[in-house]
Amino acid sequence: MIKVALDGMGGDRAPRMIVEGAAWASQELDCHIVLVGKERNIQKFLDKTDYVKEKISIKPANEIITMKDPAAVSVRRKKQASIPVGIEMLKNNEVDAFVSAGNTGAVVCAAALKLRTLPGIERPGIAVVLPALIKPCIILDVGANIVSTPMHLFHYGLMGVAYSKYILGNPRPTVGLLNIGQEESKGTELIKEARHLFEKTDMNFIGNVEARDIYSGKFDVVVCDGFVGNIVLKVTESFAEVSGKFLKNELTKSLLPKIGAILSLPAYRAIRKKVDSSEFGGAPLLGVDGRVIIAHGASNAKAIKNAVRTAMDYVKMKLNQHIIDDLKKVNEQ
Amino acid sequence: MIKVALDGMGGDRAPRMIVEGAAWASQELDCHIVLVGKERNIQKFLDKTDYVKEKISIKPANEIITMKDPAAVSVRRKKQASIPVGIEMLKNNEVDAFVSAGNTGAVVCAAALKLRTLPGIERPGIAVVLPALIKPCIILDVGANIVSTPMHLFHYGLMGVAYSKYILGNPRPTVGLLNIGQEESKGTELIKEARHLFEKTDMNFIGNVEARDIYSGKFDVVVCDGFVGNIVLKVTESFAEVSGKFLKNELTKSLLPKIGAILSLPAYRAIRKKVDSSEFGGAPLLGVDGRVIIAHGASNAKAIKNAVRTAMDYVKMKLNQHIIDDLKKVNEQ
Repeated sequence: MIKVALDGMGGDRAPRMIVEGAAWASQELDCHIVLVGKERNIQKFLDKTDYVKEKISIKPANEIITMKDPAAVSVRRKKQASIPVGIEMLKNNEVDAFVSAGNTGAVVCAAALKLRTLPGIERPGIAVVLPALIKPCIILDVGANIVSTPMHLFHYGLMGVAYSKYILGNPRPTVGLLNIGQEESKGTELIKEARHLFEKTDMNFIGNVEARDIYSGKFDVVVCDGFVGNIVLKVTESFAEVSGKFLKNELTKSLLPKIGAILSLPAYRAIRKKVDSSEFGGAPLLGVDGRVIIAHGASNAKAIKNAVRTAMDYVKMKLNQHIIDDLKKVNEQ
Repeated sequence: MIKVALDGMGGDRAPRMIVEGAAWASQELDCHIVLVGKERNIQKFLDKTDYVKEKISIKPANEIITMKDPAAVSVRRKKQASIPVGIEMLKNNEVDAFVSAGNTGAVVCAAALKLRTLPGIERPGIAVVLPALIKPCIILDVGANIVSTPMHLFHYGLMGVAYSKYILGNPRPTVGLLNIGQEESKGTELIKEARHLFEKTDMNFIGNVEARDIYSGKFDVVVCDGFVGNIVLKVTESFAEVSGKFLKNELTKSLLPKIGAILSLPAYRAIRKKVDSSEFGGAPLLGVDGRVIIAHGASNAKAIKNAVRTAMDYVKMKLNQHIIDDLKKVNEQ
């Protein structure tokens, strides 16, 4: 049975939401979950749920890295916090994957330090599946590494393609570089040099992608540096949230639109489901030698359950081995 | 009377939409419009409209810079194209402002070469007012300059504040740096150094802004480099368009949601009006010694009319003189 370590103390609503997500996963998924964190605190919340006893255990970790702690410092100083303890379990093969909704910087830092990167990969990258209004699109990096070289971007592309191929089942994913124009002449030196690296391979590289095409369903994998990717993700979140609230406000201002809104509920539910990050659950930290899944800080129980499911797919599909093999093939070309 | 040169050949639907926008402006606004471009072509479309004859004239320009032409090269080679001709008129004080929905790179390039920058300003920046779901927020640069120094970002902040103050009427606008976290320790060296420049002044600087707060109404001016700003703008556009289509599709799938949608029409109209870029019309290219307004390539007649109105505000409010004065004050501090 796949064994997943789950950071019990990370996330805006930890440990309660994390524990509830674990309990839900224990009912639905065929895996064992090790909740990492303050034992008594976790047990207290666990007792309030209807969890499957033989599928959940607790690994004590008595320190906490908060969302605001500086990443590198806290990982070095708080060795008994849930993040380093969980990563250590992964390193020692006590578990098959680690899931955290906690401090992303600390997770990336602990993973890079303890697990190291896969052979040939220089920097890890966080890959997110964007709201699939038309077709799912993977974007990476969204914040593991904010200063990239052309080779980092190339590796992101290769890893994103592997994710799209082996986890999402696209036989020959298209991959593009996020840029401010489609023309070759446009963009920074970073992007122009990365472009050359892609063009040398037989990947299904389609050149520059404009941000206006991200949600168009035209591309399977969009590559960018972690700074830009993080902005793309958060701008979308922000706009979806604020425009949703605005529409709701307008719909409830007077009686007719209110009745209209009630009749239209299935449509609103459909779009909410599409843009709801809890449906996706978790984003893999690709490129480290181990399976680490980063969940949204605002994760609810459903998001945590889905992040555990993502971790299981990651393990089952042997994604890291595929990445190593694909990189070897490219280097031999 | 304020005189505005309008690029008759620039934009996805030029010259028709541009001419229709000019005709509309001639009816509504107290200004004279000089349409720059192929005379016969423009006159043909003009004759189909109900324009105010004494408020529109044509300045012949017989070459065309297309949306795909490389900016710097085309400005040097096509001296008789509408963009360089319009900018030249502005330089010679034949008009008070220049509006173009054409090739943005070419407009920026022609303006920087011929008009030069305002004293003390190193690079121009395009400032856009984002959809005001809660409160209007100015973001700059959105693509004039893709490789920025800390001083460029600082000047963008200063110019954005002047825009917010003198055109939008905010007495003391808040200004922030777009970053991937609010903490001082986060972000690139570029942002950390720019932060120090802002902190030395008495501007209402509130530190780092996360992309998730862009639409929250918390900030008046958001500063970023042109690459990132361009991505923010286009991601929003893309998501708004695709999610709007998705919702429409869901609403018309069956009878009840369809009836609901009809009852809710005022709510949809309200949000569409808020996110509709034609309501804003144009984005000023701040920092050049002259008033240049860049309109969206997909501008319709209304967007063009509104861009002319923005140009008039720019002239009336003496924004460039305020920028020069504000920069002097900051340098004396």
